[in-house]
Amino acid sequence: MENPIDRLTLLFEHFPGIGPRQARRFVQYLLSQNASVRSELAESVKALGSHTALCKHCYRYFLKTSAKSERCSICSNPSRDAGLLFVIEKDADIQNVERGGFKGLYFVLGGTIPLAQEHPEKYVRLRELLKRVESEGKAHTLREIILGLSATTEGDHTRMLIQERLLALSQEHSFQISALGRGLSTGSELEYADPETISQALGNRH
Amino acid sequence: MENPIDRLTLLFEHFPGIGPRQARRFVQYLLSQNASVRSELAESVKALGSHTALCKHCYRYFLKTSAKSERCSICSNPSRDAGLLFVIEKDADIQNVERGGFKGLYFVLGGTIPLAQEHPEKYVRLRELLKRVESEGKAHTLREIILGLSATTEGDHTRMLIQERLLALSQEHSFQISALGRGLSTGSELEYADPETISQALGNRH
Amino acid sequence: MENPIDRLTLLFEHFPGIGPRQARRFVQYLLSQNASVRSELAESVKALGSHTALCKHCYRYFLKTSAKSERCSICSNPSRDAGLLFVIEKDADIQNVERGGFKGLYFVLGGTIPLAQEHPEKYVRLRELLKRVESEGKAHTLREIILGLSATTEGDHTRMLIQERLLALSQEHSFQISALGRGLSTGSELEYADPETISQALGNRH
Amino acid sequence: MENPIDRLTLLFEHFPGIGPRQARRFVQYLLSQNASVRSELAESVKALGSHTALCKHCYRYFLKTSAKSERCSICSNPSRDAGLLFVIEKDADIQNVERGGFKGLYFVLGGTIPLAQEHPEKYVRLRELLKRVESEGKAHTLREIILGLSATTEGDHTRMLIQERLLALSQEHSFQISALGRGLSTGSELEYADPETISQALGNRH
Repeated sequence: MENPIDRLTLLFEHFPGIGPRQARRFVQYLLSQNASVRSELAESVKALGSHTALCKHCYRYFLKTSAKSERCSICSNPSRDAGLLFVIEKDADIQNVERGGFKGLYFVLGGTIPLAQEHPEKYVRLRELLKRVESEGKAHTLREIILGLSATTEGDHTRMLIQERLLALSQEHSFQISALGRGLSTGSELEYADPETISQALGNRH
Repeated sequence: MENPIDRLTLLFEHFPGIGPRQARRFVQYLLSQNASVRSELAESVKALGSHTALCKHCYRYFLKTSAKSERCSICSNPSRDAGLLFVIEKDADIQNVERGGFKGLYFVLGGTIPLAQEHPEKYVRLRELLKRVESEGKAHTLREIILGLSATTEGDHTRMLIQERLLALSQEHSFQISALGRGLSTGSELEYADPETISQALGNRH
Repeated sequence: MENPIDRLTLLFEHFPGIGPRQARRFVQYLLSQNASVRSELAESVKALGSHTALCKHCYRYFLKTSAKSERCSICSNPSRDAGLLFVIEKDADIQNVERGGFKGLYFVLGGTIPLAQEHPEKYVRLRELLKRVESEGKAHTLREIILGLSATTEGDHTRMLIQERLLALSQEHSFQISALGRGLSTGSELEYADPETISQALGNRH
Repeated sequence: MENPIDRLTLLFEHFPGIGPRQARRFVQYLLSQNASVRSELAESVKALGSHTALCKHCYRYFLKTSAKSERCSICSNPSRDAGLLFVIEKDADIQNVERGGFKGLYFVLGGTIPLAQEHPEKYVRLRELLKRVESEGKAHTLREIILGLSATTEGDHTRMLIQERLLALSQEHSFQISALGRGLSTGSELEYADPETISQALGNRH
């Protein structure tokens, strides 16, 4: 029998942002809870696999309402604007974009593409994106793809590479490719903004 | 069927130091892992209950090596010095004290006693401590109890209350009651030390 | 004779971002320096008044090259684009804007206007701004005023109030009034951006 | 004529804990104040030299009450306990020690001695300390020297070196040499204390 305290500590250490000390505190916390809490946690963790699925359309994880459901609640919602496709890096981005008032559809890229790598398909769902865009292009449902990548060097690199790959499709099926506006973010002051942000805020003045 | 994503997020929010955002990231992390990781986590969480037990002697959680084991590895180690009893607040304190080179035994109090509360037994294992000390006192095995409480107001209050309750036993069975030394902690400078710490460092000069 | 240590500590406490402890450290630092350092500091502080002046054109402080100079190096530089006027809150903003590549002229407002205040002229150089804009409007030299205020509630309030006051002049003398672009600032990720910033980045997509 | 803005910025950059950005803000702050503030600051900085002096007895800076005063207010206070000599690193330490209730006298060492350096006299006032201790030893006024150095590697090194140098004098004139107590500082918890501190708190238990 392996030591479940050590095994669990190790598993928690792999959680995002968790170091050895906090992993140990998690185990102590679970030890101090009664058996029903631990068993609810164990059941919920297991249920993740059986009750959730990767949406075949946008590639985010969602809760299956029936064994057959293949699309998440957003992709299967007919009142969303199917003409707007927002390409994001990860599931967690959706919540903020929804709060920002976006009403279109999503595609989860699954990350960014490292600089100077030959096979971008290895890092992100590029093939899946091209396939979806091609099919929607042919169906004439797509008006605009919004590339919602991080405002970082790797995010910019990913954005430019995807723009390149989408170029021919965008001309053939006449949809737009856009990127999120850059500039001062809410709450920021000029004195503390970096020159690049100021330069972009100047370029995007309106 | 309840939503396992929301349920799990909620369970993680109860983990020490975890807010809603990090709880969601934990769920996303688990979703992105394959089923075997989730199932190992679920099994380990469940195993905590069946493979661990509260040590009947020091009240810390430990890994049972057989169904009958009632004492943890420290309490059942004959080479530890049974004459020294280190009273600590919680399991997590043991690791640091062990690294500090302590060779005696422990008693986990289970917390501190809030100020101005009438029934300290409600907050900490006071009755269990008194019972253990009395039995060891009668057996003439105890030389010293070290009260290792936090250097906070509530820790000091708890220490004084326990000293009071142990006084008669310490006289009857002639053991010492001591508290951890106060003073400058490793790495600190006089300029940034608080006056109380300096006052105690002066009182404990040697 | 007043105590120069206490007096100096108090003066340093009024410096931006300096508390009593750091003020005392400054005094200790000066005490430990030799007399020539203190005297150079004293001379430099005094020289500020005699060798600098408030630029009569943009209202920033500048170094006088002769007793008669009334304009700073930027305002008196004929190669700057006099058609662009960048309205900023304070002198310290200029450095970042210059690094961002701006080639026009500036006007230092001197702060922002608190919400719900009746007399904005009390808080910022509104009268001076209107006077300058009117004169440049009549001279047909002005193409655009860029309002470079903080992306905060008070900054937005100030921007809107100034836009209102400039409206008639902008129509009469046909110049534009613009604001800095809002959106993701360099280095930011969607997951951690606030919904308002995402909403503005969406609105300013290009 | 040199640029007083740049010169002053540079001088402020040498202040403890001040970087280029804050140095510039200090200059902007001074520019925005009226001439009387700047002139009071300049006067106070100059006055430091003429109105303060290094105490010939404890080597801290103090305010001269007359041109002849050679000792600070503590050294010249007959009600302080001259039998206790507290050796500290720097002037700024005194304030905290006074708040901690110390009633004896001080000696400001002027720093700590770097590891593996051959001439400690270059770094701290070792010769001056030995001279003072010898004279007080002969006068039979000294009962104890308290070495109040930082609880750091360099502080410990300095303490041990000074103890060594004072050893013969302490035996000849029978005074004690003590060090500040080490242990838990006020507010700290066992779980977060480092093992060395716990080890010392255990060693200093009482």
